[in-house]
Amino acid sequence: MKNGKGTHIYMSIAEDIEQRIMNNVLRIGEKLPSVRTLSKMHNVSMSTSLQAYYLLEGKGLIEARPQSGYFVRFNPSRFPKKVEKSNPSLVAKPKSVEAIISEVYDDFAMKGMMRFSLSVPDPELLPLAKLNKAMVKALRELPAAGTSYESIQGNANLRREIAKTSIQWGGHLQPDDIITTAGCMNAIAYSLLAITKPGDTIAVESPVYFGMLRYAQSIGLKVLELPTDPDTGVDPDDLKKALDKYDIKACFFVTNFSNPLGYCMPDEQKEAMVKLLSRYGVPLIEDDLYGDVYFGKQRPRSCKSFDEEGNVLWCSSISKTLAPGFRVGWVAPGKYLEKVKRRKLYNSITTATATQAAIGNFLAEGGYERHMRKLRQTLHANSLQFTRAIGEYFPDNIKMSSPQGGFILWVEFDKKIDTYNVYREAAQHNISIAPGSMFTLQERYANCMRISYGMPWNDKVDGALKTLGGLIKGMM
Amino acid sequence: MKNGKGTHIYMSIAEDIEQRIMNNVLRIGEKLPSVRTLSKMHNVSMSTSLQAYYLLEGKGLIEARPQSGYFVRFNPSRFPKKVEKSNPSLVAKPKSVEAIISEVYDDFAMKGMMRFSLSVPDPELLPLAKLNKAMVKALRELPAAGTSYESIQGNANLRREIAKTSIQWGGHLQPDDIITTAGCMNAIAYSLLAITKPGDTIAVESPVYFGMLRYAQSIGLKVLELPTDPDTGVDPDDLKKALDKYDIKACFFVTNFSNPLGYCMPDEQKEAMVKLLSRYGVPLIEDDLYGDVYFGKQRPRSCKSFDEEGNVLWCSSISKTLAPGFRVGWVAPGKYLEKVKRRKLYNSITTATATQAAIGNFLAEGGYERHMRKLRQTLHANSLQFTRAIGEYFPDNIKMSSPQGGFILWVEFDKKIDTYNVYREAAQHNISIAPGSMFTLQERYANCMRISYGMPWNDKVDGALKTLGGLIKGMM
Repeated sequence: MKNGKGTHIYMSIAEDIEQRIMNNVLRIGEKLPSVRTLSKMHNVSMSTSLQAYYLLEGKGLIEARPQSGYFVRFNPSRFPKKVEKSNPSLVAKPKSVEAIISEVYDDFAMKGMMRFSLSVPDPELLPLAKLNKAMVKALRELPAAGTSYESIQGNANLRREIAKTSIQWGGHLQPDDIITTAGCMNAIAYSLLAITKPGDTIAVESPVYFGMLRYAQSIGLKVLELPTDPDTGVDPDDLKKALDKYDIKACFFVTNFSNPLGYCMPDEQKEAMVKLLSRYGVPLIEDDLYGDVYFGKQRPRSCKSFDEEGNVLWCSSISKTLAPGFRVGWVAPGKYLEKVKRRKLYNSITTATATQAAIGNFLAEGGYERHMRKLRQTLHANSLQFTRAIGEYFPDNIKMSSPQGGFILWVEFDKKIDTYNVYREAAQHNISIAPGSMFTLQERYANCMRISYGMPWNDKVDGALKTLGGLIKGMM
Repeated sequence: MKNGKGTHIYMSIAEDIEQRIMNNVLRIGEKLPSVRTLSKMHNVSMSTSLQAYYLLEGKGLIEARPQSGYFVRFNPSRFPKKVEKSNPSLVAKPKSVEAIISEVYDDFAMKGMMRFSLSVPDPELLPLAKLNKAMVKALRELPAAGTSYESIQGNANLRREIAKTSIQWGGHLQPDDIITTAGCMNAIAYSLLAITKPGDTIAVESPVYFGMLRYAQSIGLKVLELPTDPDTGVDPDDLKKALDKYDIKACFFVTNFSNPLGYCMPDEQKEAMVKLLSRYGVPLIEDDLYGDVYFGKQRPRSCKSFDEEGNVLWCSSISKTLAPGFRVGWVAPGKYLEKVKRRKLYNSITTATATQAAIGNFLAEGGYERHMRKLRQTLHANSLQFTRAIGEYFPDNIKMSSPQGGFILWVEFDKKIDTYNVYREAAQHNISIAPGSMFTLQERYANCMRISYGMPWNDKVDGALKTLGGLIKGMM
């Protein structure tokens, strides 16, 4: 049953209760109306009321007590303080924490590891059967069973599907505006290679995804890390100051649910950013990898949607929503299309034929939106469960991000805590986290960590967070 | 029926006749012994003799005339002159022919094109059914149907199979010595990134594979092109002179059946090369992509097999033997393993899970060697058919490589011919060739072209070569 706006009524009821819990109108431990009372209040069936409570229970906001009814479980005052705007040094300065990164990512394939370090959805949350069907179809229909080279620009069917959905973030892409790549980082790598040369300076948010930082360093770029607000990202005024002071050749921002801060840049800020960079003639590499994983009412726009001059290289992939292991991503490079295409040709000729065709098939089938609705709901619930558990188990004086989408929490500890030590200790308990020092080229964020909540919530996860909290408390 | 050395007797007989044709002992138009006579001469069955003649016929060396028997068709004096040792300018100097490259490679996906430009085996020559089976098995057996990230180093089963076969080229690799990549060019790209920094000079053979050149240029390297013999490659003495004169940070050679010259570096030269580079502390990126496609008795060794210090980064793939579209390659980077692994992580995190597992399955099944025997025979026959046809249809004064393996002929024309014009003209006839200027960063080889003979030989191919020859004659 839906209301006038197309939302299910049980969702509206749940949202109303969620609001009141968040505003501390309904307090922890407080008894909620019985299902019968709730039904009368809203003039709905008992089963609709029950659905609302199930939804809230799934998010960890309320709990059922046998023979007693539903009670508020979540307390926003236990919610850790918000992370403050970052304040990196405005001098490009490299420092190698490559060994730490290698160590953290060497455990990819280790079995039995509680992998809070990896920003991907657990396979349990993915439509495996449908993906498999899409792959088998690809193998059957492709010429030479997918053994031949794909065109350099990439699978035409996949590009058509990406163009079709671009309307959801305010875009109006054509299939020929898009180049496919082996995942989003690969799209970023080609973009950087295409628009910079060794010795150039680029400006990025801070903290920022480590792969991008290290890649930039490996091709001889200097990286300027900008102050970044955990809710809204880089302020155009801060960027303007940097543009006036430094010879910046390109910018890189993860505009929607950034990795690792989780911010979502407001629409008007995106627009201002695009206009500013246009005026300075500086291209923007926009990483919109997490854009489809929003917890709000609709998908946020992208900077690309405000780009009239082809100055934004919009990068994304299905690694966070469908199949990390397929390595399927893409870039819409605006006026840099020819240059990016050449980088792809010289780097790996083209991308794997069958995996691209399979994702094209999957998207054409039309099940993506249904899958994403479920995934978003699960991840939103997870984010609240993780927030509650961290509030409960971690030291009192931590600060934390409050993402409105994505997979990731950013936790800041007392300066005394070195999260690389936490990483080492936690590994002994088969728990993996990502130390904060990975997310900068400066000597920063050593007291921070990134935690992914991309796995199904259960007692084991809760227990691992408890163990982690205990370890950290023991180190203080 | 086999002889003592494990070779089929019909093959020995055919080889004996082939030798005499090549030495002009048996001349063009000469009648060969009847099948009956041949059988008596060698004391073999009629069907064995017939097999020998079929084999020679397949190679285009002899032809059957109805009611008359077999006649010599091939004349080594019609074989064009050999290409001479290249003599590039010993100054690193960039020149953009990127537009030409883009144009040539944009026709990847065009239907009905006779693609002499592309150095890959035609799907008809590939074991498609078995590859498909290996892929379906991979999808069934992989956790989460291949949607999860592979370990950064790559599929363990595939690395085991690569290590196992390394004995064939004199290697003794362990699975952990190997990192998988998205094809061989991708392996070269990571290797270059790992061992050089912007501004460094590297030394390469000349002409040389364009992707490698352009990639090196894009990451800010200076490229020194060395004189290269079309039979044996770069002379260690020439390299020594360059090492003494320039600050060379790395070398790149395609040691076996190079692209595009087709040379195979003799074993003793490989050994000398490795020793020389060890002494100077300069790493060698060895591209052994074509090593398995030998026409002689056994697979040539690799420089890696002489490498005692871990100074050779040995790169290869299955793109020329099994499935270009799978994008499965690898590198054994010696002592640079950690560095290369990081480049892979920062560039694209990891490679596609399912395609790697499929190739691992295929190799473990054991059909690779049988497939390769057939592929080598076909390509050897093709190389002779193409050589004959080019000798017949192209202008008299051309020079040409005589590859002992691989897919590629390098043809040199009168200085008046610009092969980019040939490319444009040929494209009108749905024929694609690779202009020579692609294979250098200098203003060279504009009168050369690369022709691939990776497709099944038939009248259509013969006709296309005739058309091509006619076009070129018309331009003189």
